[in-house]
Order: sequence, then structure tokens, then C-alpha cells
Amino acid sequence: MKILDFGLEKKTGNITLDILYALRKCKKESYDKIVFPKDIYDIDTTFCEQRNLNISNHGLNGPKRIAVLVDGMQNFEIDFNGSTLLTHGIITPIAIINSKNVKMSNVNLDNPQTLTMQARIVSADETQIKVKIENGTENFVFRDGRIYALNGKESMFLRQNTIIEFNGKTGEIEHGTGDGVLGPADNLSYEKLDDDYLIIRGANRVPRVGNVLILCTYFRAGVGIFAGDSKDLFFNNINIHACYGMGMLVQFCKNVTLDAVGTKRLNGRLFTANADATHFVGCSGLVKVENCEFEGQYDDALNIHGVFLRVIEKLNDKELLIKLMHFQATGLPVLHKGDRVQALEPSSLIPFTENKVSRVEIINDEVVRVEFENSVADIKVGDDLENLDTSPDLTFRKNIVRDNRARGILIGAKGKVIIEENYFHTAGASILFESDGKWWFESGGTTNVTIRNNHFDNCKHGTWGKAVIQFVGREKVLPNKYYHQNVIVENNKFDMYNDKAIIFDNIASVKVLNNQVAGKNANIDVIHCGKTDFQTDKFSYNVE
Amino acid sequence: MKILDFGLEKKTGNITLDILYALRKCKKESYDKIVFPKDIYDIDTTFCEQRNLNISNHGLNGPKRIAVLVDGMQNFEIDFNGSTLLTHGIITPIAIINSKNVKMSNVNLDNPQTLTMQARIVSADETQIKVKIENGTENFVFRDGRIYALNGKESMFLRQNTIIEFNGKTGEIEHGTGDGVLGPADNLSYEKLDDDYLIIRGANRVPRVGNVLILCTYFRAGVGIFAGDSKDLFFNNINIHACYGMGMLVQFCKNVTLDAVGTKRLNGRLFTANADATHFVGCSGLVKVENCEFEGQYDDALNIHGVFLRVIEKLNDKELLIKLMHFQATGLPVLHKGDRVQALEPSSLIPFTENKVSRVEIINDEVVRVEFENSVADIKVGDDLENLDTSPDLTFRKNIVRDNRARGILIGAKGKVIIEENYFHTAGASILFESDGKWWFESGGTTNVTIRNNHFDNCKHGTWGKAVIQFVGREKVLPNKYYHQNVIVENNKFDMYNDKAIIFDNIASVKVLNNQVAGKNANIDVIHCGKTDFQTDKFSYNVE
Repeated sequence: MKILDFGLEKKTGNITLDILYALRKCKKESYDKIVFPKDIYDIDTTFCEQRNLNISNHGLNGPKRIAVLVDGMQNFEIDFNGSTLLTHGIITPIAIINSKNVKMSNVNLDNPQTLTMQARIVSADETQIKVKIENGTENFVFRDGRIYALNGKESMFLRQNTIIEFNGKTGEIEHGTGDGVLGPADNLSYEKLDDDYLIIRGANRVPRVGNVLILCTYFRAGVGIFAGDSKDLFFNNINIHACYGMGMLVQFCKNVTLDAVGTKRLNGRLFTANADATHFVGCSGLVKVENCEFEGQYDDALNIHGVFLRVIEKLNDKELLIKLMHFQATGLPVLHKGDRVQALEPSSLIPFTENKVSRVEIINDEVVRVEFENSVADIKVGDDLENLDTSPDLTFRKNIVRDNRARGILIGAKGKVIIEENYFHTAGASILFESDGKWWFESGGTTNVTIRNNHFDNCKHGTWGKAVIQFVGREKVLPNKYYHQNVIVENNKFDMYNDKAIIFDNIASVKVLNNQVAGKNANIDVIHCGKTDFQTDKFSYNVE
Repeated sequence: MKILDFGLEKKTGNITLDILYALRKCKKESYDKIVFPKDIYDIDTTFCEQRNLNISNHGLNGPKRIAVLVDGMQNFEIDFNGSTLLTHGIITPIAIINSKNVKMSNVNLDNPQTLTMQARIVSADETQIKVKIENGTENFVFRDGRIYALNGKESMFLRQNTIIEFNGKTGEIEHGTGDGVLGPADNLSYEKLDDDYLIIRGANRVPRVGNVLILCTYFRAGVGIFAGDSKDLFFNNINIHACYGMGMLVQFCKNVTLDAVGTKRLNGRLFTANADATHFVGCSGLVKVENCEFEGQYDDALNIHGVFLRVIEKLNDKELLIKLMHFQATGLPVLHKGDRVQALEPSSLIPFTENKVSRVEIINDEVVRVEFENSVADIKVGDDLENLDTSPDLTFRKNIVRDNRARGILIGAKGKVIIEENYFHTAGASILFESDGKWWFESGGTTNVTIRNNHFDNCKHGTWGKAVIQFVGREKVLPNKYYHQNVIVENNKFDMYNDKAIIFDNIASVKVLNNQVAGKNANIDVIHCGKTDFQTDKFSYNVE
């Protein structure tokens, strides 16, 4: 095994460039592994690698600075030995693209000044709330009683979009709250005092003194770890403390394992990633997420889905123009020659035909011209398409999910999905099955889901979602046709905060077996489901 | 000659795609020419070609939509026959890259809704100004008494940066005005009334009723016509009515001719391009601009310069890290193997050594690693570099420049510069020789400038610049060393508005011969110049 010791590669006196050259050397000279001495590596984006990346669910396609780049490598391992990559400003610290069999381990990512402001409530009554800013003044300006995040170079003001609230003692999302905890952003005014104190007026609610407000923008300028168009990736023992967008965004990769990779609070900051902790788009093979802890991030712990495509023009009997519809998810390699594709009607998302791609022509980031093997006479403008070859199996096992904004995990994987032995303490639904073909265009329907041996500990204590486990219904249903196929929920422990344990909706076959319930009575809604096999103790059922 | 008739190529029912496929066909099948039937081509950016472009002086590197793309073609001509490309939203309508011997003619570019607001003053006193918005409501929002231009998809508010004022009767920049005609933007508040009326408060001046205010942002999301890394380009009979940034941006091209290419007002709009009309960066060979009319654009009619580079690190005796310093001019191909480079001290911009590039390694859009043929021992961190092989000759002849914001033409070309037989009626200096190695980093010093047979008609009636013809001085001068070399001003006609005709500064040899002066007495400042040969009638001289 050919191993490069980064300790011997510090040659330019510029640590960012040293990393760049060490990784280029590994590629050029076919090293199997690079080992970093444990250290805090203070990255200067000025000297980082750069690639044009189109990052799904982030938008802002174009050049991205990358501190640790693995591009076009095979059978390569990076061991950071517990080091920290400390970054500043807009960056995607780690990216793996066009690579195969890559292992990365033992690293912490921190970027203390993202577009997030943390402020602790020191007094509050019905007229005003006084807070002390604990983090984030550097990237914000106060103007006309508003707060704007700055993208200074281009004279852009980024609107501060929402506020969430953490309990200052427990670190949980404050019970009973959700987005916009002080009411609509447009009603709020801010007065900056000296010494990082701030007065907020116009709130529709008096929050608890000692609690912590997080003021967020929706601007996603980078990812903690990006992986795209790669195969057989293994990530081990990685902590993401803060980053500009999602913690990890993996797109169009096959076989990806996360072992002990998570979002983790640091230095008194209650937020971590500025969006989802992990997010998988258009992957295939097996996505395995094990032994991870997710906390404090600004969106779900995991979201796994494909991309619904909209048919916008029929060119001839075999050719369609299709469009990537959501502005944050463009320029993605959504179709490849040989891919099996199904067409669905957007309101029901029930597939009605299947075809195979014979040619793909990229027009631009939004529009793709596709030729199919068979006639597309049965497909019309306005239908959605789904790629059946870019949806993986998922194993989500032995993870801890707690104290983040929004939901636990969002499942839109068409393969074998196993969710087991996890601990969930989420403010929203712990497991949400959501897809839509009209706004986010995140596909797709599941075929085989097992949820077993999990502990749902007082989940859904905030406003996001409607049940601990929730399948979101479609606008339109078709008789005897189902968006999801087979779901089993067994041997789980539900410590109930509210009384809604599960909403099953639009599923061909559902089993609920041998679960334990404590805390409150638990009920289950069953809407447009086919075969059911339900345990009769512990739950009451509302069947529609 | 193999000619494609676009009239026969309208096949998809989608005109934007038809253009795309017609041009791809021309390339693939080696057509010499494409002819468009005269028409208004209404472009939908959704279906446009796309390239990642780094456009100098615009920033925002990354994907750009392009309606008419010439990429990697040779000996090719496009005749639009007087057609209009009508575009909407962010786009670079025409781009020519990596091409050779390309001719384009007879086309008008319009994009009526850019990030510019035009409003006519209907009443004004010391407390408030009432205006009627004539153009631009669609791309602006009113919030907290401010106006923001929207980049809606990404939740960005673009600050409205400045206001200029046109005389509502003559279309000139209102005499005596400049930027910020109502005072600092931060002092102004806006109240939107019904029917596109607007009340402005906080102005420090009462503007003339009937005049027209243009509210601008500095955001440059696209160019009218972009040309990069190409050779032997000929543009003929092109009118740019409105666009998102500069009218024409030509970078790192050799031999470029503009014949009757200009900015032209349309449909009651007093603004045209949202920045300079034409701008040439790092070009070589001959840039020839003839028979053009420039009016109403938001910056100079022409700016021609190179790029000063800053030395930021010395890696060894032959290698430097250099940086592209201005955030709007990054990712440019500034250095190539074999280029001759001189080093200059930033305060004086006097070169002190010359060297030759032997290897170029792009680190990212900002930083380039350069190896030189000879030792760089004489160059230190903080010095500026200038590429001597990316500066052209310029002929600027028989053009009309009038009624735009800022200056007429900005000259930073190191070759033979001839400015003759032009008509200037500019609010600022008509010809400005500006460079700086500390903020814009636009190079460079001239060697051979002839200004003859021009008519300067009441130029410098606004606040931009200090004389009709102005050479801007350096922070520091060196005895017997000069930034510019040879300048001749002869046979011109000066109709004076103020009394300052010319400021010569930092020039080795200056001649002023046989010029006519009318209107006012005219004087000339002469600062740190070497040899002089001055006509003694018509002008008085202040020699320092």
C-alpha cells in the first residue's frame, strides 16, 4: 500500500495549497492513501481548488471552492486522524466527483460564520424581546429595522427568512413551536444596540427567556461534503459542526456508506448544518447510514429521493423535451442512455407507462432532449417522468436523530428500505414519506419499507408534520392503485407526545405488528390503503 | 459558399430551439453563412444554449444562457437582415467563443425589463418628488421605503445603488449633475402609489419637472454581445437597445472590428446598456471601432484595457502566485506560455523589470501559479504584473458619443491609438486615460496616442472627470519616468462648456497643435510631463 504522509508535504508555507498539491500528487502518482497528522487546518478559500458544480437542492450552479477535492480517482483513502478543517466564508470543504472506491475518515468540519445568527433571549414581554447575539454578526447588516445577510461582493441583500427557537436548557426545539416562532418575518423589526444586543418588536408571541433564537436565510451557497457521479464511497467518523448549506449532499452515486457521520454542535452553537444533515439524490445501489448522530441542523437528518421531470414538449413520436423544474435542482445528470423511465400523472403520481432512454442531449441546466426506444405516444405535455434506475436501497440503522428543525428522515427511495434500531427525538415527524410532482419534484414512491426496533421518543412535539410516522397523501387517488407498495412497522417503541402515531396514506399493503406504546394513547390514520395487517392492542385506528 | 437559410430551419415550433439547432448544423456541416429572415425573434431563455463564462468586469462567473452561440467555429458569417432578438430576463443574447474569422451583422438587441427603472418627474419641491414610472416596475420591489431589484429565485435583494438624471426634452444628462442626483441613496425613501406613481422623499436637491430619473443597480448578470478567446471578428450594423450589463464585452480576442455597432434608445426609454456600451479586455492585434453611435448607456462608450495582476506569494526563484484582484474580473485567461510580462510598483505603475512566462497553472478563478523563464528575484510580493502581449492597437474613428452616464472613452491600450473624426457630447470627460493597480486593476500605460480631427461639443457638462481630455495622475511619480509615452492632440474642435480642455499628466512627450476653440476660454494643465510642443494660440497652459 502506497501511503502519502501529509506531514512531509507541507512545502509552500500555505496549508491550503499544500493540501491541494498533496492530493494532486496522490492522483498523479497513484497513491492508495493519504494520512493527515491530527491538526486544525485553517483553510483560506483564496487558494482552494475549484470546480463548476451543480449541487442538487442548493441551486447557484457554477464555480465552487473546495479544500479537499477527489476528482477522477479510484481506490483511494483519506484519513484525517481526527483533524478539523476550519473554513471561513462560502466554501464546499470536501468534494468527491467522478471517482470510485473512495474512503474518507476522521475529520471535523467547522465554519463558524455562515448565514445563521444565534441570539439568546434576555428579556421578553408583549412589546419587545431583547436578545444577545451569540454568533453571526459578521455576515449580517441591519437596515431599516430589518436584518439582511450579506453577499457583499455583489451588492446582494439576502432576506432573513425565518426564525426557529431552541430551548436554552435542553437544546431541544422549544416544544410546540415551528418556523417563524415570532410570527411573519415581515411584521418584525430589529433595533441593534451596543454590545451585540438586539431589540425585536412586532412578535406575535412572547418566547421564553433563556431560549435561543436562530435567524436563518434560505441561501445555500455550499455543502459540507459533496459527492457526485461516483461509486463505492465510504465515510467514517465525520462531524459537521457548521456549513453553508446541507451537511452532506450525495447525488447520482452508487453504493454510499456513512458510518458515524453526523452533525454535531460545537462551542455553544445550537445550530449545525444550514439545511439537511444528509441528502441523497438520484443514487443507486445501497445507501447505508449507520451509527450516526444528527443534531441542531436546520432541516431533516436525511432526505433520499429522485427527481421528477416534467414533459414540456413533444418533438416527435420518440423524442421529448423534459425540464428540471425546481430552481435549486438544475443541471443534474438525471437521464442516461439505457435508463428505464416511467411516466406519471402529476396529481396522482401513479405511473401509467414505461420506456427506455436511447439518447440524451443536454440543452442547458433546465432542459434535456430525450429520445426513447419506444413510441412516446402515450405520454403528453405536463406529465412527469421518473428514472427507475436512479433510486437505491436504503439502510438507516442505529442512528440518533434529535433536536433539529423540521423532520427526522424523508424517504423517497424505491428499493429496499430498512429503518431499524434508531433513536428519534424530533420536533416534526420522525419519518416522512413525501414526494411531489408539482413543486419540489422530489420522487418517489416506495416499494418495500421496514421500520423496526426503533425508539420514537416524544417525537412531533413541534409543528412540522402531522404524525410520528407520516405518509403524505396525493391530491388525487386512483382506485386500487397505490403510490407506495409494502410497509411494515414492527417492534418499535413509541413514547407518545401527541396521540397521532402514524398516518398511512396511499399504500398497497401495510402491516403494524408488535409495537410498544407509552405516554399517551396512540392512534393511526389509514387512508386509501389496500391490504392491512394491524396489531389490535396499543393503537386505535381511523380507517378511511 | 454554403449558406443556410434559417427560414427553412423553423422545425420545432420553438424559435429559440430552432436557432440553437440551426447554428449547431452550421458548425457540424461547415456552413460559411447563415441568413435570418428579417423578423422579431422572441427568445425564451428556457431553451437557450448555455456555457460557463467568466465575463470580465461583470463577475458572477458560471452558467450563462445564450441565444446565439458561436463556439469553436471558423470562417463563419451570420446575417440577421435587420432582425431583432427580443429577450427577457437574465441572458447574454450573443456569444462568440474560441472562434476565428466570424462576421455578424444587421441585428438589434432588446431586453426591455432589465434591472433599470425609468421614472419621469411630474412634480418636485423641497419636501417630495413625485415621479411616474415609465419602465422597470416588474423587476423591483418596494420594502420599508426602499427599492430593491429582485433576483427572485434566490431570495436576493439587489440594492438600488444610484440615480442619474436625463433632461426630459433634450435627452442629455441634465447639465451639472452626476451620480446620485438626489443625494446619498441611504437618505432616500420611496412611497409607491397606484398607477405607477412614486413619491421620493429625502432628496438634497429639487430636480426639474419633466426630467427623467434612472434608478440603477450595479448587478451585471449578462452582456449584450460577449466575445472571448477568438480572432478576426467583424461586427456590422448592430443596435443594442437594452441589456443586463455592458453592450459588448470582448476579452482576449485578436483583431476586432465594430462598424456601425452602437447603443440606441428605443420606445421612449432613455437608457440603453446597463453599463459600458463596449469594453475590451486583454485584446491584441487591432481593435477598430468606426461609424458607431453610442447613447444612453449607463457607463462609458468604450473602455479598453488589460488586467494588472498582483504578486501574492513567491514560491521559488522562478515561480510566483499571482491574483486577479477585482471581484468582477476573475477567471480570465490572463497569462499564457510565452507571454512577455512586466512588473510595476503599484503606486507609480512604472515598470522596473521584464520576464517571460514559461508555465501557467490555474489554481482557481482568482489565483494563478506562474513560472518564468528568468529569475524573479527582482519582483516582490505586492508588486503588480502586466501582460505586454495582451494589449492592442486601437482605432476609434467617425463615432458619435453622447448622452450617456459617465465618460466617453477610456483608453488603456499600449499599441498605436488613433482617435479621430469623432463627435463627443459627453457629460463627463470625453477621453479619459485611467489605470490603477490598486482597485479596478485595469491596465495600462499608453505608448502612442493620436487625437485628431474630433469635435468636442460642450463636453464635461456633468460631474464625471475633470477635463474634456484627461490623463489621470499616479499616486507617486518617478523623476524622468512616465506612465504614458507619446501623445498628440491636433486639429480638433473644442466647443467649451467649462474652461478645462485637457489635463496632461505623467507623459513623456506631448504635442498640442492646430486645435480650434470656441465657447469659453480653454486651459490645459500639464503635470509631470517631459517634452512638450504646444500651440500658443487658443489655450492657456498651467505647467507644474
